Amino acid sequence: MSDTELLENEMHNKMANAIRALSMDAIQKSNSGHPGMPMGMADVATVLFSKFMRFDPQWPEWPNRDRFVLSAGHGSMLIYSLLHLTGYDGMTMEDIKNFRQLHSPTAGHPEFGEAPGIEMTTGPLGQGLATSVGMALGERLEAARTGSDISDHHTYIIAGDGCLMEGVSQEAISMAGHLKLSKMVLLWDDNSICIDGDTGMTTSEDMRGRFEAAGWHVQAIDGHDPEAIEVAIKLAKEADQPSLIACKTTIGYGAPNKQGTSSTHGAPLGEEEIALTREALGWEAEPFVIPDDVQEAWREAGQNGATLSAAWKEKYNALSSDVKADYDRRLSGDLTATFDDAMGAYKAKIAAEPVKVATRKASQMALEVVNAELTETVGGSADLTGSNLTLTSGMKAVTADDFSGSYMYYGIREFGMCAAMNGLALHGGFKPYGGTFMVFTDYARPAIRLAALMKQQAIYVMTHDSIGLGEDGPTHQPVEHLASLRAMPNVNVFRPCDAIETAECWQLALHATETPSILSLSRQGVIQQRTTHNTENLCGKGGYILHEASSGNPKVVIMASGTEVEIAAAAQQALEAEGTPTRVVSMPSTDLFDRQSAEYRASVLPEGTVKASIEAASTYGWCKYTGLDGINIGLDSFGASAPASDLYKYFGITSDALVAAVKEKL
Amino acid sequence: MSDTELLENEMHNKMANAIRALSMDAIQKSNSGHPGMPMGMADVATVLFSKFMRFDPQWPEWPNRDRFVLSAGHGSMLIYSLLHLTGYDGMTMEDIKNFRQLHSPTAGHPEFGEAPGIEMTTGPLGQGLATSVGMALGERLEAARTGSDISDHHTYIIAGDGCLMEGVSQEAISMAGHLKLSKMVLLWDDNSICIDGDTGMTTSEDMRGRFEAAGWHVQAIDGHDPEAIEVAIKLAKEADQPSLIACKTTIGYGAPNKQGTSSTHGAPLGEEEIALTREALGWEAEPFVIPDDVQEAWREAGQNGATLSAAWKEKYNALSSDVKADYDRRLSGDLTATFDDAMGAYKAKIAAEPVKVATRKASQMALEVVNAELTETVGGSADLTGSNLTLTSGMKAVTADDFSGSYMYYGIREFGMCAAMNGLALHGGFKPYGGTFMVFTDYARPAIRLAALMKQQAIYVMTHDSIGLGEDGPTHQPVEHLASLRAMPNVNVFRPCDAIETAECWQLALHATETPSILSLSRQGVIQQRTTHNTENLCGKGGYILHEASSGNPKVVIMASGTEVEIAAAAQQALEAEGTPTRVVSMPSTDLFDRQSAEYRASVLPEGTVKASIEAASTYGWCKYTGLDGINIGLDSFGASAPASDLYKYFGITSDALVAAVKEKL
Repeated sequence: MSDTELLENEMHNKMANAIRALSMDAIQKSNSGHPGMPMGMADVATVLFSKFMRFDPQWPEWPNRDRFVLSAGHGSMLIYSLLHLTGYDGMTMEDIKNFRQLHSPTAGHPEFGEAPGIEMTTGPLGQGLATSVGMALGERLEAARTGSDISDHHTYIIAGDGCLMEGVSQEAISMAGHLKLSKMVLLWDDNSICIDGDTGMTTSEDMRGRFEAAGWHVQAIDGHDPEAIEVAIKLAKEADQPSLIACKTTIGYGAPNKQGTSSTHGAPLGEEEIALTREALGWEAEPFVIPDDVQEAWREAGQNGATLSAAWKEKYNALSSDVKADYDRRLSGDLTATFDDAMGAYKAKIAAEPVKVATRKASQMALEVVNAELTETVGGSADLTGSNLTLTSGMKAVTADDFSGSYMYYGIREFGMCAAMNGLALHGGFKPYGGTFMVFTDYARPAIRLAALMKQQAIYVMTHDSIGLGEDGPTHQPVEHLASLRAMPNVNVFRPCDAIETAECWQLALHATETPSILSLSRQGVIQQRTTHNTENLCGKGGYILHEASSGNPKVVIMASGTEVEIAAAAQQALEAEGTPTRVVSMPSTDLFDRQSAEYRASVLPEGTVKASIEAASTYGWCKYTGLDGINIGLDSFGASAPASDLYKYFGITSDALVAAVKEKL
Repeated sequence: MSDTELLENEMHNKMANAIRALSMDAIQKSNSGHPGMPMGMADVATVLFSKFMRFDPQWPEWPNRDRFVLSAGHGSMLIYSLLHLTGYDGMTMEDIKNFRQLHSPTAGHPEFGEAPGIEMTTGPLGQGLATSVGMALGERLEAARTGSDISDHHTYIIAGDGCLMEGVSQEAISMAGHLKLSKMVLLWDDNSICIDGDTGMTTSEDMRGRFEAAGWHVQAIDGHDPEAIEVAIKLAKEADQPSLIACKTTIGYGAPNKQGTSSTHGAPLGEEEIALTREALGWEAEPFVIPDDVQEAWREAGQNGATLSAAWKEKYNALSSDVKADYDRRLSGDLTATFDDAMGAYKAKIAAEPVKVATRKASQMALEVVNAELTETVGGSADLTGSNLTLTSGMKAVTADDFSGSYMYYGIREFGMCAAMNGLALHGGFKPYGGTFMVFTDYARPAIRLAALMKQQAIYVMTHDSIGLGEDGPTHQPVEHLASLRAMPNVNVFRPCDAIETAECWQLALHATETPSILSLSRQGVIQQRTTHNTENLCGKGGYILHEASSGNPKVVIMASGTEVEIAAAAQQALEAEGTPTRVVSMPSTDLFDRQSAEYRASVLPEGTVKASIEAASTYGWCKYTGLDGINIGLDSFGASAPASDLYKYFGITSDALVAAVKEKL
């Protein structure tokens, strides 16, 4: 080793030890956290951030920055250390000291939005990797739209054994390999330790073989050898496939009595072991103090980004005004100026010429308008394109050879799809929508939750949304899914009743830039309920008077959503025929209805009326609107396999049953 | 080929064509279904069932029968055809004709319990394979308990591309490879067709490499060559690893214009194409008619099983009476005669010597009693053993070399774990329980739903069940999970408030042989509420008066579950101190409470009282008990990262907040 190399090596060690010290000290102070991973991966992270990552702490949202995703989110002190050391204003030493305290950006796991430089919320294992597929995909899509000079960043992921054991990792690596997302570099913290002990207790996989089988470029290195790390990342960047670097590391590296064991994984090292670690690492600084030379070296790594981002800005400025305008608009999340007018014209047309179609078909009709207006939509389906009706005319498939398309054949990978959608949304510039059957929201639920938590705009086109799908039977018939998604914070669940409401719900979903939306859509046709044009988006109130009682002064209020609105309307006619003033309230979104004023809600659901709900789903939750003495018609068991009309009768979800129940209360 | 071979070959073709004919005709008649797979895999299924499968249609529940799982459940006509042809009484030609009709056992997807010979419900892709891991594991565990003469069956799975794209397949094959479950044979219908088109649109995986990396024995054959199929299954049985046979097939084999395309996947072939298929296959029989010689050959395949099952019966009869008694009891699902007494004694002890422990710790204490009493429990955790506290003294790990243990280190595979638990329960003889964090029920939700649908007794030990887990933050804090699981049919959700209730909930879960149970358990310690011994299991009513109002005539009723019961108790004291008669209702299970008589429910929650609920979770659903004008204290947003006590204060889940809200209503 030459003198320069020796010096460089020494500084590398100091920089890596700064991460280790900050991590063990912050975790000790909060008496809670996971030191093992940040200490084990400090060398890899140091090389990555000081020699490769293109980022600018002064402009964290630089669109072409390299993305760094800490899929093993429990190692959050790694990213907090990096952000602090490289000079992000949003990550002060005070923040580090307040690790895991209320209102501090240094949450237990990295939380998107809490500090700049955190590209996504991680912690639920496997999802960092799976979401990164969407980020890397976003990079390619953008390059195909604006030119590769504008979009050519890398996506680096640190993942642990847990991430790779989760099934979603397979969906992700299979997709990435298939799409040849060569700018994805996965740094696997191969430390052979799980919480329960040695990974050998639970897995015997040949990880290299697994990734190679998925079409990845694979290397294995000593994760504590800075030179080897540097060479490997360089080769990974050169490969024309996504790349795995297996970094053999020692968990809790530096802690003389605990390193290499699961005891460093999820608990503070303890004062005594920390003192010994300081000694072993030759780290003499007090807790939360970074020696000037080390700080200097780290800041330099951060400052290099300014040149890169400035150079990018020039390329951006050279874009043609059209391209730039569309790019800026897409990044801002705004829709086109003409979008709402186009949707209004479409609504007016449908109001004038009513259609009897399934709401999944109505969704496709609305999407034809949407996709003609917007360049940021990226559609797709988990191998149910013809059923979800997510493809519109002129859409082209995204393939490994051509990223100019806007339709993703995601394969039978609901979870992977929804995670990739999160990645597309986080990347910026895209509004992803993706379809599967409503019942399979269960498969994708962890990604839907993460979208909600991260306030990302993902739109789920969930068709075949009740026993109305018929013969496929109970495994395919959602029952509890509406309730279970309505209960999830920051998710808008929409269940439109006809083509007009479907268009309105699409509009709402596309405007909700901080909330994912579920569109719950029918397999079977529905009678169009709305036949006069409203310029107002009535679904925006969540629930509204669809068919008023003849007297204007109802004795009975029937609430319904989706395909059951026409049953409610039939019951209304029967009750009115017998002289009972009955109102039908369409409730496409209880989430939005709950956000209206108490006055509005009371005006729609007046006190002193008999209240009934009907929905071909679990009745769970409807008591909120019908009270202790209301009527809730639905399905609180699993469905069955039979033609849809037989099932509605069998389960008593009919206007006759509704009328009979109401009469008992009158 | 010799004359005998030619004849055999000819009969093979006829037998396979019988499956094809039944499939296409039944699907045509019901005008709904998936002919492509049964027609494509008819040759493989014919060889498997006529030459290998050990089963006895006269004794479908023969414990040592080979298991056959149609993971690609949409091809349900394949299994219905096989069951009918081999002579299961529960599958008549009438049933075949009533494919996909109400009350017919021939549901759209195979439904466990609808007909003997259907080992599990399939349709949600990947889960047949993942559940089979549990069946194959059950075989090994039983062999280690009673001797391999009694338990040495194989588990055969037919899976399609969809099954292998789902992430859970990776968790399954990784587990199976690790445990060297050599009696698992996976027949992959390698037809290169998905619903959206060619599989090449979505995947480029080297499937052989992927399985080899997971430690599987791998072969690839022509799935229409009976000899090759026979040789491959023979070799697979001889391998000392789980075995994959990639069967290259033509989807919709025999349909001259449609075979090999996705158009055969999920729709009837049409009368015209069916006529042409008959011609192409040389199948002259009318729909739903099986020529005598073909019927004879199939029945013979079915009848061979009688000899095998009789031979097994002799071995069974030779078991020592102790072993036999335990075996019989385990298979019956009954607990030991002394079980309830042991639990009663434990409850009495805890009532006399109250403890302040987390309910996860209380769960482990109860499990110590349970596992000392029962030989059928198989515990485990998805790599959170020390957090879930699922391991009890003396339990030994199950490993590839030793299946005499009863504890599974499932790895970071929540979905795979729960699917394997389903397989263990379906296998018979075992009551599986498995742990992870409550928030990760999301990862395992599709398997939990399948347990509920199949009425299987799986017990989920879900710890860290609220913001009470503290610093790990919102990704790890369940919010909507209680509501979303309560909404699921046939799942009992239990959230006990102290060590006594935890013991009672374990007892209920272990008695509920047709219902999976969720035990929602705390990270943090709780004050023991029950300090007098009740011989009755009070939790069995779901909700009950825990602390009566001083007057016996409450003005206020506070409902709570789990860790919030002590907050309710504190609020009661404050209100009583101010002269407001207040009752505390502990509600460990709303599911069970809903099943009580209206009288009982009204006696616990009397009309005319101010009703309040408090639970550190989404309030969704509580209006059912508190009404339109009640108080619901909970958390309808995501949590945050901070010490637990800070979070309770921050989110206003305190006795002060509760008292203040009640006073406003008084």
